[in-house]
This record gives sequence, structure tokens and C-alpha cells, in this order.
Amino acid sequence: MDEFELIAAMRERFPPSPERVLVGSGDDAAVVRARALSVTSTDAMVDGVHFRLGDTASPADVGHRALAAALSDLAAMGAQPGEAYVALGLPDAFADASALELADGMADLARRTGVALVGGDITRAPVLTLAITVVGWADDADDLVLRDGAQPGDRIAVTGALGAAGAGLAILEGRAAGPDALVRRHRRPEPRLAEGMALARAGAHAMIDLSDGLASDAAHVARASGLTLRIDLDALPIADGVQAVAEQLDVPAWQLAVGAGEDYELCACIGASDQRNAESGVRLVWIGEVIEGPPDAELCSAGVAQDVRGFHHRL
Amino acid sequence: MDEFELIAAMRERFPPSPERVLVGSGDDAAVVRARALSVTSTDAMVDGVHFRLGDTASPADVGHRALAAALSDLAAMGAQPGEAYVALGLPDAFADASALELADGMADLARRTGVALVGGDITRAPVLTLAITVVGWADDADDLVLRDGAQPGDRIAVTGALGAAGAGLAILEGRAAGPDALVRRHRRPEPRLAEGMALARAGAHAMIDLSDGLASDAAHVARASGLTLRIDLDALPIADGVQAVAEQLDVPAWQLAVGAGEDYELCACIGASDQRNAESGVRLVWIGEVIEGPPDAELCSAGVAQDVRGFHHRL
Repeated sequence: MDEFELIAAMRERFPPSPERVLVGSGDDAAVVRARALSVTSTDAMVDGVHFRLGDTASPADVGHRALAAALSDLAAMGAQPGEAYVALGLPDAFADASALELADGMADLARRTGVALVGGDITRAPVLTLAITVVGWADDADDLVLRDGAQPGDRIAVTGALGAAGAGLAILEGRAAGPDALVRRHRRPEPRLAEGMALARAGAHAMIDLSDGLASDAAHVARASGLTLRIDLDALPIADGVQAVAEQLDVPAWQLAVGAGEDYELCACIGASDQRNAESGVRLVWIGEVIEGPPDAELCSAGVAQDVRGFHHRL
Repeated sequence: MDEFELIAAMRERFPPSPERVLVGSGDDAAVVRARALSVTSTDAMVDGVHFRLGDTASPADVGHRALAAALSDLAAMGAQPGEAYVALGLPDAFADASALELADGMADLARRTGVALVGGDITRAPVLTLAITVVGWADDADDLVLRDGAQPGDRIAVTGALGAAGAGLAILEGRAAGPDALVRRHRRPEPRLAEGMALARAGAHAMIDLSDGLASDAAHVARASGLTLRIDLDALPIADGVQAVAEQLDVPAWQLAVGAGEDYELCACIGASDQRNAESGVRLVWIGEVIEGPPDAELCSAGVAQDVRGFHHRL
């Protein structure tokens, strides 16, 4: 298939565009009926850097994961997901069937999350490369949650169990044995879009998605807000099976939870008075509090600060 | 510099964000005050495919050219340019100074065109890779021009001289000798944003930018509109110096004008009654007409149809 045929075949896999998309693929640009505020993020993934094709990820995994990572940024803003634009770099050896698998992985997630895949570009590249731009929408700035709004006294919550993606990668790389469920959490992360919107409605003061790992990501919020995020490592929800993997790797389980990243859960800072409100809409685990102090994350176990720098690992 | 330092240093090169940008770089996503319709296009450029770094293009050329190509798609819609989001893949050997040069090339064009560079991503990649998503805005669907609106009797115009980019590439590749001005047209194409908006206001029925070359691009409009675009090759405005390069390459000059692509002029189909109106705002050259017939471009010289397939060349 030439470029145009491949684009047409991929487009057939994508969900039909909703009414707000006035012009989809096939013109110079897509045209979409806007709401008051556009919320936009771009994310790239490269074979050998963010995944190893055929080894840690299938084409469908790559399609899913690249879109999921981009959408996770919209979740962290509390934005309603809208459209995705995909720039795809394909190596010569990449089969058309693999490109269609990749499209399927992306299309399945798009369908479930109500995202319209409306534009893109395909080019040759030395290795499989994806750059995905996602656009979300909001009607009012108050509907969105930034990183800089944490307040002293806020409680810190996460939306789900941590460490699964890091443990899954260790299993994929043969560094440990463990259940497929963990591998799947690495390959097929779920952007917490509904949770992000619910937390925004519940009045969360600051929010971020856990892509780099809680240690780094909490530090981003701390720096943006000019406060300390004190996190109780003993309170972290550790995903099932992570403890056993951590033992094989000879590290405490919380290291996978805070250092490995790519769990794509949300971390939110919520005022004490909104705590119950937030819990009513989203399953949350409370892991710490925001205090006056140096703008950094402070991670404690049994009341003792832990140095978690240097545990961040990727491929 | 690490990724965050490099991003900060590049950001300093960029023009300050206008008021409509409520949240720029540094959060999970950018937030922009929208107008009624968003117009969005994604374009990727890869070293060895679209340019050869250090050979056909400097880092600053690459930054300019990738943004220009993306913005050209907005020009072809008649949209007002708004924001750009850049995913940058940098090889290990790519110096920080080169990344800053690239940022400068992009920033200069952004400044001149009023584009806000508000988001992006930097990652490692085997070769220099850019994926640029540009967002433009319009208040009404009638303010935009698609490819599918050409009507029988429309006159066809282009916004400037053709063949310069193709001739410039031939010079860069040592296949011909010629003036620097042609090389510059290859390295630093200008997106015809003002022209695109003026042609939209003047009621153009269909429009496209000349990225693949007039032969291919006119065929896109023809197929979308279900009509024949008959183009008089003898009427094409050939850029200064292209004739001499074409002679060295032993091809007629119109082959560089219709086959080489990347001139990034606009081609518009305009109703006879709007012709004078269109000309009052934009320098135009009339090169053909839209007629009933097979949905394809028909390119004639001295009244004889020419086969221009196979002349399309890139790196």
C-alpha cells in the first residue's frame, strides 16, 4: 500500500467522527467546533526509547500506549477529551498489517474514551515513531486543574494502585517473574479521564498524572505550588503482585510505586473540606498532605524521609 | 543540559505567549481561549527523509521549514494561525547548541506569523525528528476554504512563482548550479497565511497548498470536487533562475514547477465574479480553469496534455 492507501485503510479502523468534527481527515487540516477553552498536549514515543517493538510491546500495544499517555495529560487537567492527531513514522520494514494493528490498538481506546482520531501524517522514519497531539475541551477555566494550586493542609490522593507498570516492565525484561496482569498494566495503561473530570468537579486544587513516577511528579506539583508534598510511602496502594516482583528485584515495593513511573494514575491535592465530596465520585487512596516548606516532594516511610532519587528507570 | 533545562532554554527563544494562552508550557497541557472553530494539522519531518541535516539544511532551516510546512496547511484553509505544539526527537549526537539554533529558526517564523509556541515534548530518537501540530482559528465555517468546493467555470490561481524549491534542492544536491535565492526558497519556504485568509474572504471555492507539487495537489482538489482542473503549463509563473537550472537538468522548466513540490504557494479555485475581488488583495497568477470532466488534473502545454507523473522528486 502507498501512503494514501495506508491512511485510508487505517482511517477505516477508526471510530466514526462525531458531529462536532466538521472536517476530518482528507483536507489540509481538520475543522472542529470548539468549546470555550482548548486543552492541548503533545507526546512522542520512539522504538528503543519508550518501548521495544516485538519485545516489550506489540504494534497494537504501541498504538494504545501512545494514545493513552497523551490522553493521560488531559485527564490530569480535568479536561473532556476531544480529538487526537497522530504523526506516524514507519520504518521500511514495518508491515502494512502491523500499521493496521497499531491503528486498531489506538482505535479501541479512542472508541472507549470518546476520542475522535481526525488527523495525522505518515512518513518514513528509521524506527517506529509516534507523536500524538490530543485536544480536550472545557467551558470554563474553573473546570480545569493545574499543577500550581496546591494549598497548605490539602490532602494528597491517588486514583489507583501503583507499581504495576514498573513491575510489568521488569517481567517483560526478564528481570523478574510475575503475573500477566502486571505486564498488561505496562502495555495497556488506562488514562483516568473520568476520574480527572470528577476530581476537577470536586474542587481539586492541583493535579498531575503519574507518568515519570510519584517521586518526580509530586515534585513537579510541589515546585509549581511552592509547597512541600509530604507523602507517606507506607500508605501507598501497591498493586497486586508488585510486592513479589520487588522482592525478586531486591528493592522495597514502594520503589516500584514511586520510581518506575508509567502507571498513569492521577495524583491530586484536595482541600480537607472537599475530601468526602471527592471520594463520592472516585475511588481514592489518601497518601499524604501538603505543608509549608521547601518546594519538593518529601517521601517518608515509618516517619523517616527516604531518598528515592535514582530509582527512576525506563527502558 | 538535561531535558528540562533544554526545554527551558528553548522556551526562552520563543516569543512571549499572547493573552489567549491561559496556560503555556510547564503544566500537563496548554490551555488556550478558543474561537468558534479550531483548524488543526499535524506534519512530521525526519532527517534523511525530508532533509539532510548539515547538508541540505542547518538546524535553523529545519526549525523554520517544519513549522512553515505545518502553517502552510492552515494557510490553505484560510485559517488565522494560532498555536504550535512541537514534538522533537533528538539523536544523542545532536548538540544543545544545535537544538537552540533549531528553536531560533522556529521562533523567528513564529514571531513573524503571530504563532504562539506553547507546548511540546522532547525525546531521544535515532535521527532528528520533528512533529509539529498547528492550530488555527475561525469564527465561522464560511471563513474557511476546503478542497471540495471547486465549481465548473472557476478560474485557477497561484499565489507566487513556482519551481524555486525544486531547483534549490537540485543545486543543494550538486545536480545543477544556480543562485542562492533558489536554495533559500528550498530551505526557508514562506507559508502564505495572509494570502490564504485574503482568498478565503474573497470567496475562493477551493484551496490547497503546493507541498507535493501542482500536479499532485491540483489532482487532490479535482478528486475532492469531482471535476477536472485544467492547467495551462505555459501560463505558470516560473521563479527567476529556474529556467537555467531546468536546462542543466535537461527538463522543461514546468516540470520543476509542477513536479518538485515544496514551493508552499497556494492554489485556489475562484468564481469568475470574484476574480477581480481576489486580485485586489493578493498578487495572483491565473493558470487554468475548472471544467466538468474526470476528477483529475489535466496539464496542457501548447494545448497538448502532458504526462507529469513520475517527476515528483524528493530527497
